[in-house]
Amino acid sequence: MIKVGIVGGTGYTGVELLRLLAQHPHVSVEAITSRSEAGVKVCDMYPNLRGHYDTLTFSEPDAKQLGDMDAVFFATPHGVAHALAGELLDKGTRIIDLSADFRLRDAKVWSEWYGQPHGAPSLLEKAVYGLPEMHREKIKTARLVAVPGCYPTAVQLGYLPLLEAGLIDPQQLIADCKSGVTGAGRGAKVPSLLAEASESFKAYGASGHRHLPEIRQGLGDMQAHPVGLTFVPHLTPMIRGIHATLYSQLTTSVDDLQALFEKRYASEPFVDVMPAGSHPETRSVKGINTCRLAVHRPENSNTVVVLSVIDNLVKGASGQAIQNLNLMFGFEENMGLTAPALMP
Amino acid sequence: MIKVGIVGGTGYTGVELLRLLAQHPHVSVEAITSRSEAGVKVCDMYPNLRGHYDTLTFSEPDAKQLGDMDAVFFATPHGVAHALAGELLDKGTRIIDLSADFRLRDAKVWSEWYGQPHGAPSLLEKAVYGLPEMHREKIKTARLVAVPGCYPTAVQLGYLPLLEAGLIDPQQLIADCKSGVTGAGRGAKVPSLLAEASESFKAYGASGHRHLPEIRQGLGDMQAHPVGLTFVPHLTPMIRGIHATLYSQLTTSVDDLQALFEKRYASEPFVDVMPAGSHPETRSVKGINTCRLAVHRPENSNTVVVLSVIDNLVKGASGQAIQNLNLMFGFEENMGLTAPALMP
Amino acid sequence: MIKVGIVGGTGYTGVELLRLLAQHPHVSVEAITSRSEAGVKVCDMYPNLRGHYDTLTFSEPDAKQLGDMDAVFFATPHGVAHALAGELLDKGTRIIDLSADFRLRDAKVWSEWYGQPHGAPSLLEKAVYGLPEMHREKIKTARLVAVPGCYPTAVQLGYLPLLEAGLIDPQQLIADCKSGVTGAGRGAKVPSLLAEASESFKAYGASGHRHLPEIRQGLGDMQAHPVGLTFVPHLTPMIRGIHATLYSQLTTSVDDLQALFEKRYASEPFVDVMPAGSHPETRSVKGINTCRLAVHRPENSNTVVVLSVIDNLVKGASGQAIQNLNLMFGFEENMGLTAPALMP
Amino acid sequence: MIKVGIVGGTGYTGVELLRLLAQHPHVSVEAITSRSEAGVKVCDMYPNLRGHYDTLTFSEPDAKQLGDMDAVFFATPHGVAHALAGELLDKGTRIIDLSADFRLRDAKVWSEWYGQPHGAPSLLEKAVYGLPEMHREKIKTARLVAVPGCYPTAVQLGYLPLLEAGLIDPQQLIADCKSGVTGAGRGAKVPSLLAEASESFKAYGASGHRHLPEIRQGLGDMQAHPVGLTFVPHLTPMIRGIHATLYSQLTTSVDDLQALFEKRYASEPFVDVMPAGSHPETRSVKGINTCRLAVHRPENSNTVVVLSVIDNLVKGASGQAIQNLNLMFGFEENMGLTAPALMP
Repeated sequence: MIKVGIVGGTGYTGVELLRLLAQHPHVSVEAITSRSEAGVKVCDMYPNLRGHYDTLTFSEPDAKQLGDMDAVFFATPHGVAHALAGELLDKGTRIIDLSADFRLRDAKVWSEWYGQPHGAPSLLEKAVYGLPEMHREKIKTARLVAVPGCYPTAVQLGYLPLLEAGLIDPQQLIADCKSGVTGAGRGAKVPSLLAEASESFKAYGASGHRHLPEIRQGLGDMQAHPVGLTFVPHLTPMIRGIHATLYSQLTTSVDDLQALFEKRYASEPFVDVMPAGSHPETRSVKGINTCRLAVHRPENSNTVVVLSVIDNLVKGASGQAIQNLNLMFGFEENMGLTAPALMP
Repeated sequence: MIKVGIVGGTGYTGVELLRLLAQHPHVSVEAITSRSEAGVKVCDMYPNLRGHYDTLTFSEPDAKQLGDMDAVFFATPHGVAHALAGELLDKGTRIIDLSADFRLRDAKVWSEWYGQPHGAPSLLEKAVYGLPEMHREKIKTARLVAVPGCYPTAVQLGYLPLLEAGLIDPQQLIADCKSGVTGAGRGAKVPSLLAEASESFKAYGASGHRHLPEIRQGLGDMQAHPVGLTFVPHLTPMIRGIHATLYSQLTTSVDDLQALFEKRYASEPFVDVMPAGSHPETRSVKGINTCRLAVHRPENSNTVVVLSVIDNLVKGASGQAIQNLNLMFGFEENMGLTAPALMP
Repeated sequence: MIKVGIVGGTGYTGVELLRLLAQHPHVSVEAITSRSEAGVKVCDMYPNLRGHYDTLTFSEPDAKQLGDMDAVFFATPHGVAHALAGELLDKGTRIIDLSADFRLRDAKVWSEWYGQPHGAPSLLEKAVYGLPEMHREKIKTARLVAVPGCYPTAVQLGYLPLLEAGLIDPQQLIADCKSGVTGAGRGAKVPSLLAEASESFKAYGASGHRHLPEIRQGLGDMQAHPVGLTFVPHLTPMIRGIHATLYSQLTTSVDDLQALFEKRYASEPFVDVMPAGSHPETRSVKGINTCRLAVHRPENSNTVVVLSVIDNLVKGASGQAIQNLNLMFGFEENMGLTAPALMP
Repeated sequence: MIKVGIVGGTGYTGVELLRLLAQHPHVSVEAITSRSEAGVKVCDMYPNLRGHYDTLTFSEPDAKQLGDMDAVFFATPHGVAHALAGELLDKGTRIIDLSADFRLRDAKVWSEWYGQPHGAPSLLEKAVYGLPEMHREKIKTARLVAVPGCYPTAVQLGYLPLLEAGLIDPQQLIADCKSGVTGAGRGAKVPSLLAEASESFKAYGASGHRHLPEIRQGLGDMQAHPVGLTFVPHLTPMIRGIHATLYSQLTTSVDDLQALFEKRYASEPFVDVMPAGSHPETRSVKGINTCRLAVHRPENSNTVVVLSVIDNLVKGASGQAIQNLNLMFGFEENMGLTAPALMP
């Protein structure tokens, strides 16, 4: 049994960590911090956890307490992990950061998109990008893992087989992405109200979104040079789920894209290549850590369309964080992550 | 490991049994029948089950095959269990019937509400009403369990402490109930379309609903004489969940209704009495077998208001069926039913 | 053409006034105030109004400007109309107050429920309660109208025929009410987020809600003595609509409740008694000023169940406000309010 | 006052015609046909119409009765208008066909996509494609108008300024489209149930959809040669609305795309070019005939992104049909179509 702490536990990724870890046989959540809710019992804030964490209470962040943990999850806004990571790493605590703090290798790029100096550039070389399908071996020995963002996970897993195989033009990538509203977090903002966001659909950030440099970095790594990517995120009126519709142009003749995808992901526990002709629904991954993919080639043209769905709070955040933890601590990779999706 | 079969597995209670049983360490689903989908793999129909039941295929109902099972769940329209139950019981198979076939003790009443003769009146004396909070000991030795309906579960658990204690007038009960749309099943009907049922709220069956005699029978048992009950069900635009708002009139002075409820349910694994002043939300039980209750006494009047929420597909159907199975086979009562609710 | 102003125009009842008044041939909106949005064009905040109010801009509240109007609507939190009403009335401006400021005749009761002294008790005797089905003649000559709340409108119209005719026990009234989320206003609160409020149903205020004294006052007026009322509001996951399910006990034998309702409302332009056996849906009044009613008597018992639906933003607020304005200024009562409901 | 009939009035486009025409001062609906519902009053089927069409009743289709109308709308599945159009045109009745029967100029292409021979190829040369922004003058004198499909309307209006001006590569068009569920009609199908379609998002028809040839034909007309188009439709969990996200590649340097769009649509009553940087929401056009557009150029690349929203039942069907009727009969183009969108 390992001891873990959660920093910033009041948001959706925090409570999702608790929900999933309640099913993990080898993890005990010993600390959960929140400045605003210190002293409140987690099950008073999240009644779905009644009966599971009946004594766990939000506390003020305390580096000493966190330093006693085997691992600490950061489920915080950007900047927080920068401030605490160094001290915890020095104490031997492993860090799994769900925020954007260590996702970009280049501190300068980070600083441009987040509008503030990078708070821990010296730690960047230690950070491993926590996409197991790309970096499994490095994750196993990492002390500091940057869990990928939700859009970046769905987009990278969809393009990976095509880019690795060098089949498509990396300069002509278009990722049209749709997210449920939990992607915007639990902050009280008018546009996120049910009265505003339901029964409507819209794009946002069409001229630039913070996940763009992360996706570019990841796609670039797959074939060793920069990509040209247009990324347009949209808000869809549902709670959970991301659907990425990924367009690219074949540069070579290919016989069987379906076989390519199936082969690439044959041994991946959390990537499911659907049968040819499928249209994966986001609800088919509601609450679980799986990414389901389908590949289409409309009218045998050179355009490839990949459909990629994840639960933004699981494979796009807390589930992938636990998958990383499992790898870092030598547990079975799917430990605590085996329940089927809730459907309907 | 026991072997179980599911008759009528294509509806929502069937797929929910599969979802929940995937987490049960001592149950193996060996047969699932459907006349309309025979030959189809369950995970082709329900992609959320991909990776869990990859070889399980719907088959024609076959009494011989079902008779080899330790237990058979009926997730069927009324009448089907009548026809098969006798033969299976003779073979030693235990039956857990999610339909209404064996819920009413009086075949004549059944026949009035269901518009056809009762198909197996001789089995009625063997049938145990599967509400563990009322009939746990009988369930443990039962061969044939009638799983309560969704509304009846929510209503009975809410009134139980009051009626058992003889505190309220049993002639003045009003149950105003609200259900998500899965309560209407998976049939393709215009009123259940998203375009018809979302963004709207309505009552139905205000002049009489089939769950009424079942609720009356159950409430009557709690204090040994017939009750006067008005029951109005409503349709609310969501997938899962029942909220019962239960009104009654105190006939005696009572100090502490909260303590009464807490004491009555102190050792029940699946009834959660919320703190005084609470308003349980249906989402706090999404996907789980718990009933959450709160008791109010507006302005210290004689009117008691009990709020009772369940997931209609879990505590209102498939989860309670598994709870019964656990009792019948001597497993821990909560086996396979320990995950927290999905929230948000 | 009369000139009107709107105080507090950024909330849902404000924008709904604009939407409806865009169709009114004899009203020109000349001023709309908002402290927080002063200087912003209304169609920048509400793009649905583009093409209708392209130059109208929120301004700081200004008693002088408002005093030049023929009528002013208050779409404000409580307390604001108290402060401004006297001055405007002195200038000859008629006031239609959508807030709770002048709904209760008794300043002491007001002050108990709203936790502050009543700010304009001397105006109370001038205020007319703007439920046209009860007070049409008084409204025609009123200078200050208090538009009823949303729940109070649905509940009063449902009980009116029964109480006026003296058929039911006024001490045993139970109003189980369900509202869409716009009833909670446009404030940015966590419980109103789509991620929190959708796919869930809950009661709130079970021990006391501010609409209770207003409903009691109105029902009391119908039969000249106080009523005993239990009122439990619920939140349902949809944008608009209120469904009131109203229970009462007959104290005398009655032949034909359907005829009673039809007769009472025969000449009402905005009350629609549905055919016997109906279950009105809230969507059937989406966007319109109609209240649809159905009356049931389950199993010929003494319990009467009335189902009453309105759009909380129209008949429950802005539409009823315009209906009052039409009466006050001698227009056709349904002017600007003739479009059918949006369905589906 | 002109007399109109509606063939196939039970579907969503039929009831939407009734809703909108109730506000049209110069149109009287004298006949509405439905084989399945003959004899039923429309307001019994659609209670939102109570008070508006209280005597109108569905009747069997009758060419004689329809031939007495000034105009007949077809709100039918494909093939029905083929069979009746010739006879009605001979009687002098003008036809406004909301189905796909006369949208494609090439009967052979029609027959390939619809899997049956074209039933009235001789009428094709009389048919005018009813997109007023392209063909206004022809519509004014047309006897037979084919109302564009919902996706084709949103896509064509978005690409029109760019293609007419010759600024983009017509071989590299990608239209990623999202529709509410009413796009699938009112048929009782399992995938359209609230329990199946809500809280989920999916693509469909990724390998080919019937609107593809219609869009291709329309886009081809804008610049006189065939286009290369990838079109992927998606289902989003809401009732109404289409959002088209349109990608293309600039082939020439352009200073000001915003000005280009504003100029092209300056005098169009139903196309609203939003301010630069906008992200139009589908709810901003709920219930109305407007198409709102925004144009983006992410990071000043050569990729242009156009966002285009309509209400699929109004500008995508019944509203556009009435806009065509207004043009054909010399009414103001926006007659009956002036109400603001319902929001929230």
